[in-house]
Amino acid sequence: MARFPFSAIVGQDEMKLALLIAAVDPSIGGVMVFGDRGTGKSTAARALAGLLPPIMVMEGCRFGCSPDEPRACPGPCEAGKAVKRNVPFVDLPLGATEDRVLGSLDLERALRTGEKVFEPGLLARAHRGFLYIDEINLLEDHLVDLLLDVAASGENVVEREGLSVRHKARFVLIGSGNPEEGELRPQLLDRFGLSVEVRTPRDIGDRVEIMRRCAAHDADSAGFGKAWADEDDKILHQIARGQKKLAKMEVPDEVLVDAARLCSACGVDGLRGELTLMRAARAYAALKGAKLVRREHLLAVAPLALRHRLRRDVLDESGSTARIERAIAEHFA
Amino acid sequence: MARFPFSAIVGQDEMKLALLIAAVDPSIGGVMVFGDRGTGKSTAARALAGLLPPIMVMEGCRFGCSPDEPRACPGPCEAGKAVKRNVPFVDLPLGATEDRVLGSLDLERALRTGEKVFEPGLLARAHRGFLYIDEINLLEDHLVDLLLDVAASGENVVEREGLSVRHKARFVLIGSGNPEEGELRPQLLDRFGLSVEVRTPRDIGDRVEIMRRCAAHDADSAGFGKAWADEDDKILHQIARGQKKLAKMEVPDEVLVDAARLCSACGVDGLRGELTLMRAARAYAALKGAKLVRREHLLAVAPLALRHRLRRDVLDESGSTARIERAIAEHFA
Amino acid sequence: MARFPFSAIVGQDEMKLALLIAAVDPSIGGVMVFGDRGTGKSTAARALAGLLPPIMVMEGCRFGCSPDEPRACPGPCEAGKAVKRNVPFVDLPLGATEDRVLGSLDLERALRTGEKVFEPGLLARAHRGFLYIDEINLLEDHLVDLLLDVAASGENVVEREGLSVRHKARFVLIGSGNPEEGELRPQLLDRFGLSVEVRTPRDIGDRVEIMRRCAAHDADSAGFGKAWADEDDKILHQIARGQKKLAKMEVPDEVLVDAARLCSACGVDGLRGELTLMRAARAYAALKGAKLVRREHLLAVAPLALRHRLRRDVLDESGSTARIERAIAEHFA
Amino acid sequence: MARFPFSAIVGQDEMKLALLIAAVDPSIGGVMVFGDRGTGKSTAARALAGLLPPIMVMEGCRFGCSPDEPRACPGPCEAGKAVKRNVPFVDLPLGATEDRVLGSLDLERALRTGEKVFEPGLLARAHRGFLYIDEINLLEDHLVDLLLDVAASGENVVEREGLSVRHKARFVLIGSGNPEEGELRPQLLDRFGLSVEVRTPRDIGDRVEIMRRCAAHDADSAGFGKAWADEDDKILHQIARGQKKLAKMEVPDEVLVDAARLCSACGVDGLRGELTLMRAARAYAALKGAKLVRREHLLAVAPLALRHRLRRDVLDESGSTARIERAIAEHFA
Amino acid sequence: MARFPFSAIVGQDEMKLALLIAAVDPSIGGVMVFGDRGTGKSTAARALAGLLPPIMVMEGCRFGCSPDEPRACPGPCEAGKAVKRNVPFVDLPLGATEDRVLGSLDLERALRTGEKVFEPGLLARAHRGFLYIDEINLLEDHLVDLLLDVAASGENVVEREGLSVRHKARFVLIGSGNPEEGELRPQLLDRFGLSVEVRTPRDIGDRVEIMRRCAAHDADSAGFGKAWADEDDKILHQIARGQKKLAKMEVPDEVLVDAARLCSACGVDGLRGELTLMRAARAYAALKGAKLVRREHLLAVAPLALRHRLRRDVLDESGSTARIERAIAEHFA
Amino acid sequence: MARFPFSAIVGQDEMKLALLIAAVDPSIGGVMVFGDRGTGKSTAARALAGLLPPIMVMEGCRFGCSPDEPRACPGPCEAGKAVKRNVPFVDLPLGATEDRVLGSLDLERALRTGEKVFEPGLLARAHRGFLYIDEINLLEDHLVDLLLDVAASGENVVEREGLSVRHKARFVLIGSGNPEEGELRPQLLDRFGLSVEVRTPRDIGDRVEIMRRCAAHDADSAGFGKAWADEDDKILHQIARGQKKLAKMEVPDEVLVDAARLCSACGVDGLRGELTLMRAARAYAALKGAKLVRREHLLAVAPLALRHRLRRDVLDESGSTARIERAIAEHFA
Repeated sequence: MARFPFSAIVGQDEMKLALLIAAVDPSIGGVMVFGDRGTGKSTAARALAGLLPPIMVMEGCRFGCSPDEPRACPGPCEAGKAVKRNVPFVDLPLGATEDRVLGSLDLERALRTGEKVFEPGLLARAHRGFLYIDEINLLEDHLVDLLLDVAASGENVVEREGLSVRHKARFVLIGSGNPEEGELRPQLLDRFGLSVEVRTPRDIGDRVEIMRRCAAHDADSAGFGKAWADEDDKILHQIARGQKKLAKMEVPDEVLVDAARLCSACGVDGLRGELTLMRAARAYAALKGAKLVRREHLLAVAPLALRHRLRRDVLDESGSTARIERAIAEHFA
Repeated sequence: MARFPFSAIVGQDEMKLALLIAAVDPSIGGVMVFGDRGTGKSTAARALAGLLPPIMVMEGCRFGCSPDEPRACPGPCEAGKAVKRNVPFVDLPLGATEDRVLGSLDLERALRTGEKVFEPGLLARAHRGFLYIDEINLLEDHLVDLLLDVAASGENVVEREGLSVRHKARFVLIGSGNPEEGELRPQLLDRFGLSVEVRTPRDIGDRVEIMRRCAAHDADSAGFGKAWADEDDKILHQIARGQKKLAKMEVPDEVLVDAARLCSACGVDGLRGELTLMRAARAYAALKGAKLVRREHLLAVAPLALRHRLRRDVLDESGSTARIERAIAEHFA
Repeated sequence: MARFPFSAIVGQDEMKLALLIAAVDPSIGGVMVFGDRGTGKSTAARALAGLLPPIMVMEGCRFGCSPDEPRACPGPCEAGKAVKRNVPFVDLPLGATEDRVLGSLDLERALRTGEKVFEPGLLARAHRGFLYIDEINLLEDHLVDLLLDVAASGENVVEREGLSVRHKARFVLIGSGNPEEGELRPQLLDRFGLSVEVRTPRDIGDRVEIMRRCAAHDADSAGFGKAWADEDDKILHQIARGQKKLAKMEVPDEVLVDAARLCSACGVDGLRGELTLMRAARAYAALKGAKLVRREHLLAVAPLALRHRLRRDVLDESGSTARIERAIAEHFA
Repeated sequence: MARFPFSAIVGQDEMKLALLIAAVDPSIGGVMVFGDRGTGKSTAARALAGLLPPIMVMEGCRFGCSPDEPRACPGPCEAGKAVKRNVPFVDLPLGATEDRVLGSLDLERALRTGEKVFEPGLLARAHRGFLYIDEINLLEDHLVDLLLDVAASGENVVEREGLSVRHKARFVLIGSGNPEEGELRPQLLDRFGLSVEVRTPRDIGDRVEIMRRCAAHDADSAGFGKAWADEDDKILHQIARGQKKLAKMEVPDEVLVDAARLCSACGVDGLRGELTLMRAARAYAALKGAKLVRREHLLAVAPLALRHRLRRDVLDESGSTARIERAIAEHFA
Repeated sequence: MARFPFSAIVGQDEMKLALLIAAVDPSIGGVMVFGDRGTGKSTAARALAGLLPPIMVMEGCRFGCSPDEPRACPGPCEAGKAVKRNVPFVDLPLGATEDRVLGSLDLERALRTGEKVFEPGLLARAHRGFLYIDEINLLEDHLVDLLLDVAASGENVVEREGLSVRHKARFVLIGSGNPEEGELRPQLLDRFGLSVEVRTPRDIGDRVEIMRRCAAHDADSAGFGKAWADEDDKILHQIARGQKKLAKMEVPDEVLVDAARLCSACGVDGLRGELTLMRAARAYAALKGAKLVRREHLLAVAPLALRHRLRRDVLDESGSTARIERAIAEHFA
Repeated sequence: MARFPFSAIVGQDEMKLALLIAAVDPSIGGVMVFGDRGTGKSTAARALAGLLPPIMVMEGCRFGCSPDEPRACPGPCEAGKAVKRNVPFVDLPLGATEDRVLGSLDLERALRTGEKVFEPGLLARAHRGFLYIDEINLLEDHLVDLLLDVAASGENVVEREGLSVRHKARFVLIGSGNPEEGELRPQLLDRFGLSVEVRTPRDIGDRVEIMRRCAAHDADSAGFGKAWADEDDKILHQIARGQKKLAKMEVPDEVLVDAARLCSACGVDGLRGELTLMRAARAYAALKGAKLVRREHLLAVAPLALRHRLRRDVLDESGSTARIERAIAEHFA
């Protein structure tokens, strides 16, 4: 069955925006999706990965090396010629072991030949693509920590079993979780770049439309894909333009002051809040084709960048999003 | 001793209906059976499996490959000619390890010959049949999660011990549990397609009839089977007709609106509720030989599709089934 | 020291009755003995096993195959000629591992020769005899579950370590436990066929008689055994007659109605209650040499068959036995 | 340093009596010593073992075989001629594994030669002597259970790791524990034959005498031993006479009635109470050189045999010993 | 990307001071940093390490031996000529095993050649540099204990797996933790030399400046480094002068009296408080280029040296820092 | 850096006295030090070990055999000539395994040559010296128990992994712990010979003096050592004289009566209290050069010998030391 097209997803605009920003600037630090079960979180992430054009990789390379840096992997490299491959989308299985995620000693080879060869793990496979973790709150803290480290640095450093291996692992980390089922520690949440909240759509029209599209996709997924190909293409071009513009995108000082004032008003601990806000605004402006970052870009992405970083305020029971919107209204209206 | 005939089961109409729908559309996502101990849950599932005609498999294939797709398995395939085999019915033993369920490295062969050969597990054995899990609430969450993933995708992907194997595993997942003994997390429940509630029959006549049939089956199971063969055949033909009609069965827009309104009225989180409701109605209409899905089909399967997905409502202590029935009465009466 | 004779056991009539019924119909599903420590539970079970005539087994067969079905075991079979052997009585040691109970891979042989040979466990040893589990409430649930499965099906199916073995394991399962020390889950209790309650005898005469018989047995166990041989023989003939009559024993419809009414009145969940009641009545009638099952047979075994299956009734603090007796008095007086 | 002489132990008469009874009839089922730390429990047990004459064993036999039954052990037996050896006294180390206690597969030999040879454990070493367990309440229940099984049966049956070995293990089991530190389960306590309570001596004269004897033993243990040799010899002859008389010692019926009445009056659950009482009275009468068991013998050992078997009585806060003494006073005064 | 320059860090003066003191006297016992997430703790420590001039090491030495003591390591040493290397900065991964931290047997080599060769761990790699532990409160106590032992003694002693190895491991230990997430035991805290508290800067100007510098560093890290090279050089010279002066720096008696009075007034348990205070004052005076330690030096470092050692005072809810400042004001104003 | 001299330790007289008594009579059973962190507990113990003259050992002996009993170890002994070695001081690492403490099978040798050779552990290394356990309350109970057993018997008996080894292990056991961090079970405390309480010195003069001496030792540890050599020598001669006098030191009966009265008055359970009191008084008298033990010696060591053995008295909240002093005042004033 062919993938569900990204542009055929009904509603869920904030989630789609966060995914597009992460596609423009994968170094933004991952996206955490909070929300109800069965709202298409995984479908959207997969759809975005499917939308992107294939990448070129060295054939047979176990580390997904690009032909631009052909021998960057720790090897032993038996890479042949460059071939096309779909953008990787790795779904981290619940209960995956650290070994399997990081990679490990190839035990069989070690026993047979006495050589210590590294067997790449899921991080290597996610290189240049997406790593999706459903119910991330059920993962052990140290594994989340480790995944965030790799997502932030773009590099996997393995120091185990007498191995000392280092390979590239650049990917967009997407975690999802239901806050009712236990939370991530604030220390870990803070390390996610963006976060979004997803809810079941309330509008009957939307819901019928979703069922109609699912039924159409079930019946003829290829035909359905073709029907949405133009819409998907538009999005693809927007991403490509954003990626190109990002490097030169400037943030004027008055926008930095806005960012600092907003974070201060909202009660964000630490400095990751404003640094991410600045970077998200830059990516968003690039996506929109703007020449430089303006206050409107900053405010548009503020909930994404700050929502999961607010200090608990026992006197203020309103949710994080409401508090950010109120701060925006008070200071920038 | 020969199997107990499906048609000889007294009462338990809802459980039988759910099993028949799953037989028509195995992609519906499994059936969860709640209820009292000793009410014939396992007997009914086994009876359905026994009712179905034998399937053709490649002789010696460890993955149950069908002659229609003879080399679909990851091998090493030593398949000979096509032979008949009963529809598989796998009873997951309490305490079964992940290894045994998923399959694992054939350690002996690895040690002896240095080859990494995959030893298929219970999922491979359940392919094209039924996987029954008694007291599923006692299983570890991550195993349930994994089983639901496979049941939904029809494919078992194993990434362990340096193995990377993928094989077909299409089966009807049937779980049973006593809600008094601890519950499944809502996240997991939501992923089951249908659910039914089973109770001890109250009618003395029914109970005597059950004893009488059990005694008859104990005394002469072969003769008993013959006595019910015609009834079983009727059911078999109904299933076969349903499977054939399913592909073309249309769901008119007004029925989709009904589905969305009902889910909204009942307070179902997420979209799996209405998507499953739509699919179950389709399978039910096919089973009944209808030309298209009508509101009556939708309402008939609504308790099966929605009961386990209702949001907790602290102000409404009535059970899930009662809430669904009330919503139906209010909106569709 | 020779065994203590079954007929020399003072009192404890209900326990002895349950053991005799299980000897007549081993498929009844085991006997659970509740009660005080040091009341001769294990002595009685051993005495019954010792009373039965030796069985014929194929010499050297690790699965206790009978000469009637000489090659029924999974082998490798090195069975010679048929020899006599005492009825097996296996006492499950506390802390026995699943391996030891089920059987396991013969690791030494696997390492030495590379062959996967199954090493039979305690279930194989109990075949055609008795499996006694003292303090069954201390056993892990999944092991109890597994033992009940095997006791019910008469077959041990092992799916582990790459082994797939199936061998006969027909035995009478006898569990004992002190309810003060923690209970079995209702789900597990329900799967036992019969249950009895044992108490310390109150009568001084009985207690002196017990000491006198123990002292006599201590002093000269062989002589003591001879003194009771005639009594034991009578019991043995009663069992043999019961086994013969069982196959043809009919249960009239009005007795089935009685069974359903009684279970309904007592508040028994599920259908195992009345099915077991019917089977126990049949075995009891056979033991008594009756022509068909009568209401008196049913009522005599009702406490054995139902006591452990009553639904908790918070308004009725009287014990299970009292509730059954009251229901009998109300409906059948 | 030479052993402390048994007869030089000041006070602690009840503990000494229990040890002497167990020496006369080792099948009595072990002695449980409750009481304060540092009151010479282990010293007394060691002293008794040291008092007994050396035993004859087959030289090199790993199972301590006696020359009277030279090939009784499971072997491989490399026994030479009979030699003298001290009565074994094994002190079970805290944290001893089941392997070490029961014996286990000799792994090294198995790996080297492929033979499965049994390596005897501490039970084999304790054969024909004493097994002392300090702080038995800290041992795992299943190990205590197992030790009591072996102590009662005089035989160690090992079914593990593909081994099936059976060897004699007759010993006096002595456990000690401080009731303030957690208790043994009643089920386990009940299986000990005798129990005693030990307290710190209150009398200043006794305490000075103890220090004086310890100082003398510290200064010249050999000389101290000689000074008490005559006293120890008297005790040794008493034991020897008791062992000889035991086999023929009769218990008149009126004494059995006394036993039953006493147990009934005290509220002893089960029958082990009166059976042990009868046996202890027999051993005590033999130790005293009596012709037959009289009521006075029975009453003298009643606290030892019954104290740990009383049913909890929430209305009677007085200790077990007081309750037994009161029952004696009421019924036999 | 080049390192962030130490001198470009905005604010956080206390943290920078503590790091500089530890750089002057690495034997001070490590620095514990408490405080908000995302406040640049790790950035500052890395920046300091990056600021220091490269060290000379023996090429190929697995223990980082200096050419001044070329064969000090336990070998097998295959060291070649002396080469330059950056000051080591080791980031202890969450969940690192004891093996990996301490070093362990090189298992592969042991299996292949039978030689027991020690495989150095992270402690060996940190030798002559920095060991950074984020969220140290999540580490197991015994590992923290062990790291503090090594940091204090400058030597790693491994006694495991039959190995007995001892190698130099002199490093500055830096731990960070958020007190809201669980605390270190007082026993462990006390063993850290210095501690600092870090907070999110409140000043909008500072926050904008931080974003501006991060943006500049992101855009052109090499150019940014050059712009701050002079400032970094000044700090480097200050450290070098401090290290040289430290050996001869005297602490007059009246300053010792001040130290004792201050610790006594603050309620510091044990003597580590004043000993560390004396040493920190010495290092600080050396850093400042003073001739001898004066009261002002002592008071300046008192919060760093004492803050984490105050006895809990249930009547005084003010924080540790406030209590130290109050004691200073009272006694030295 | 040279060791800190024992005589240069400021204050802490009770701890020093206990260490000297243990040096005179190592069989006293170890010293338990309670008290604040950072009060020089470990420094004092190390200083005492450093003060003692070197011992003679057989070169290469893995068990530290003395030339006086050259072949006392279990071997294989490759001992050469006698050589001098410092008195061993073993610091038990937190988290040390039982294997490492007791010794274990030399696995590598077993695998390579098939020989079972014992690899001595930390107990063998501590032989004839000191074993120091910091934070003994964090050690597992069974390991403490085992260490106390060995300390009391002077012999290490290993029964594991098919090994049966016995070697001398005479050492002074010193444990330290902070009572605020959890306590040892009374059973274990009772087995320590002596206990002392250590507190942070309150006197400013003492505290300045401590800093001054530490600074002097830091600056020139060799010179500092020489300055205190005469004082250390005096202590050494005192110990030597004490050891010589101990064997003949008599305890008059009236002093024994004093001991019994005192223990009785204080409420000491068991007899270890007065036996240890007697031995400590003897060692103290010997250390002081007295001719026989007098009441003053007894009273001087009473807090050391009894403090940790008092029965809890819920009505008396004053500390153990106060209760002992009060009892002394009442009975011996």
